[in-house]
Amino acid sequence: MMAGMLFDFELLATEGEARAGIFHTAHGALQTPIYAPVGTQATVKAMTPQHLQDVGATLVLANTYHLYLRPGDTLIAQLGGLHTFMGWSGPMLTDSGGFQVFSLAGQRGQKSLRKIDDDGVTFRSHIDGREHRFTPERVVEIEQNLGADIAMVLDECAPPDDYAYNVRALARTHAWAERCKVAHTRPDQALFGIVQGGIFPDLREQSVRFLTGLDFPGYAIGGLSVGETKTQMHATLECTVPLLPQYKPRYLMGVGTPEDLVEGIARGIDIFDCVLPTRVARNGQALLRAGKFNMRNARFSDDPAPIDETCTCYTCQNFSRAYIRHLIIAKEMLAATLLSIHNLHTMLTIIRECRAAILAGTFAEYRHCFQG
Amino acid sequence: MMAGMLFDFELLATEGEARAGIFHTAHGALQTPIYAPVGTQATVKAMTPQHLQDVGATLVLANTYHLYLRPGDTLIAQLGGLHTFMGWSGPMLTDSGGFQVFSLAGQRGQKSLRKIDDDGVTFRSHIDGREHRFTPERVVEIEQNLGADIAMVLDECAPPDDYAYNVRALARTHAWAERCKVAHTRPDQALFGIVQGGIFPDLREQSVRFLTGLDFPGYAIGGLSVGETKTQMHATLECTVPLLPQYKPRYLMGVGTPEDLVEGIARGIDIFDCVLPTRVARNGQALLRAGKFNMRNARFSDDPAPIDETCTCYTCQNFSRAYIRHLIIAKEMLAATLLSIHNLHTMLTIIRECRAAILAGTFAEYRHCFQG
Repeated sequence: MMAGMLFDFELLATEGEARAGIFHTAHGALQTPIYAPVGTQATVKAMTPQHLQDVGATLVLANTYHLYLRPGDTLIAQLGGLHTFMGWSGPMLTDSGGFQVFSLAGQRGQKSLRKIDDDGVTFRSHIDGREHRFTPERVVEIEQNLGADIAMVLDECAPPDDYAYNVRALARTHAWAERCKVAHTRPDQALFGIVQGGIFPDLREQSVRFLTGLDFPGYAIGGLSVGETKTQMHATLECTVPLLPQYKPRYLMGVGTPEDLVEGIARGIDIFDCVLPTRVARNGQALLRAGKFNMRNARFSDDPAPIDETCTCYTCQNFSRAYIRHLIIAKEMLAATLLSIHNLHTMLTIIRECRAAILAGTFAEYRHCFQG
Repeated sequence: MMAGMLFDFELLATEGEARAGIFHTAHGALQTPIYAPVGTQATVKAMTPQHLQDVGATLVLANTYHLYLRPGDTLIAQLGGLHTFMGWSGPMLTDSGGFQVFSLAGQRGQKSLRKIDDDGVTFRSHIDGREHRFTPERVVEIEQNLGADIAMVLDECAPPDDYAYNVRALARTHAWAERCKVAHTRPDQALFGIVQGGIFPDLREQSVRFLTGLDFPGYAIGGLSVGETKTQMHATLECTVPLLPQYKPRYLMGVGTPEDLVEGIARGIDIFDCVLPTRVARNGQALLRAGKFNMRNARFSDDPAPIDETCTCYTCQNFSRAYIRHLIIAKEMLAATLLSIHNLHTMLTIIRECRAAILAGTFAEYRHCFQG
């Protein structure tokens, strides 16, 4: 059995701020840094769980907002929880649903689909328009029903560069974090706090101090990758992450590109998630270590080479660029599957390379080469 | 290496008309009776080649009409042929495209999209409306470019119950079969003749006599499963199949349901293909040994059982009816993949069971149980 206790974070090596570690969950030990594919509706789109395993995924994220609305968290609990429901036996993570709910505002340019108050947030389903309400206690209840290994507190996402808004939102985020912590009872699930505060160092520091006082088993950096510049994101990480406890995992939510992974790791991040690799796959895009290919492009129509000559994924080992392009043009579902396999494999390979480099003490060099 | 020479058909056992055999192709030996999944556009929809292998597929069909139009047979030849193009290293079969071209008539209720004469058929692409022409020689050229292990002659498909039409069509079908045979030069590809004649025993007999005179390495029964009754289909098989040479494989094109397989085998058929299992999968239907489930049905919403308790496929081993239904309702691509896996696995299991029963001398009993 594992040496580590549940939710222990073992730090194996550091190089500058970069860390290689192990986070122990009820469904296995996660080797960090780690990238989690996103399975919004209890499926990583166009992939089977076998495909996820084959590309080296270990942690999978699912969206509380979507699963609460359909098929419902109580149904999933009744069916044995999210792992059993979607056939994924490894570690899982659920967000709080807050980000999706706050994103509902103004989506239609007409009446807002959500209304926030100090107690929680009322919103209308994007599926049928019916009204629902999330409070910190309700979200914890839903996430406990879903039963992921890592759950997130409900927080308020503010525009990153509006100071006054962030001050108000932070007060709510902190009160909600405390209420989530009190409501949370599931011993096999780690509830992570979420540091907010936009691009403002004083607010980020205030947020870290408040949340670490609540002693969560892990901390996320929220409110980034939502419109701020890369420079602002990096500066925010640089002033926030070093304040976090060393022996707890740090999770940068919703980030990002291959380069974002390397730069986030360089600033002390352990966990990432992002829909990008699978979303762009469904648009016919193949991720490369630097940049990407639009596989719909006519120049690939007779190209016998794989997407990436150096890639060891199922797609690159078996299919040509010409075939992938044919599938896209012919509107075949297999295009999304093969590109999702390649894109996730690319992300997961890069993050494994980062970990190996940190363990070998060569991460600075790796990062330098990556920046090309 | 294989004992059999290329295109040898070894008859291992018979029980009544039912046969168990081995057909030797350039990409391996096919254990007959066999069912071929349909990969219209060089992909069995929603499946990877790995999935096909996992469900036990050995022969895969692709459609000449579709691949000729897009991406084009010369491009596929240039990329190493159909096997390399789609990543399938086992035996493959291409139809002649005739059935698709003849199906273009009247699809729009306006001007016919195809015009037939004694030399060939002129038609308009369903993709862009451009005019194309198939002759027996052109179809053979295209199929040789595609490079499947089994290719089919160009034939004319007539309404099964119109005697006068069938007489005229048969003359063309025979002349075209002869021209295909002359045009065909690829030594690693078996060109099969197609017996036509609708539901009329005299025409079927005439067709068998003509085509066997040309000595093809295998024979298909065409023009069935196109509107005639099951009784008519069975009667036609009963008067046609016994006239065919014993040591050549017999292929019933476009058939069918699990029951159709068993009943076809009982009448001496060795090879089947049908889009049904994958097409109904994309409509949310799960095939059972008898009948099927509409997995969209609300009664499955909280059902923790697999589609079929006795099934050993990836889908039934890992996922509940409730999950499959959720995927369908949530419009997730994985629904089509998981149902295609189950449906193909079901078809291929049934046909393997038929083969084992013939080898054991228990096929009559198996067939009786199957009819329930």
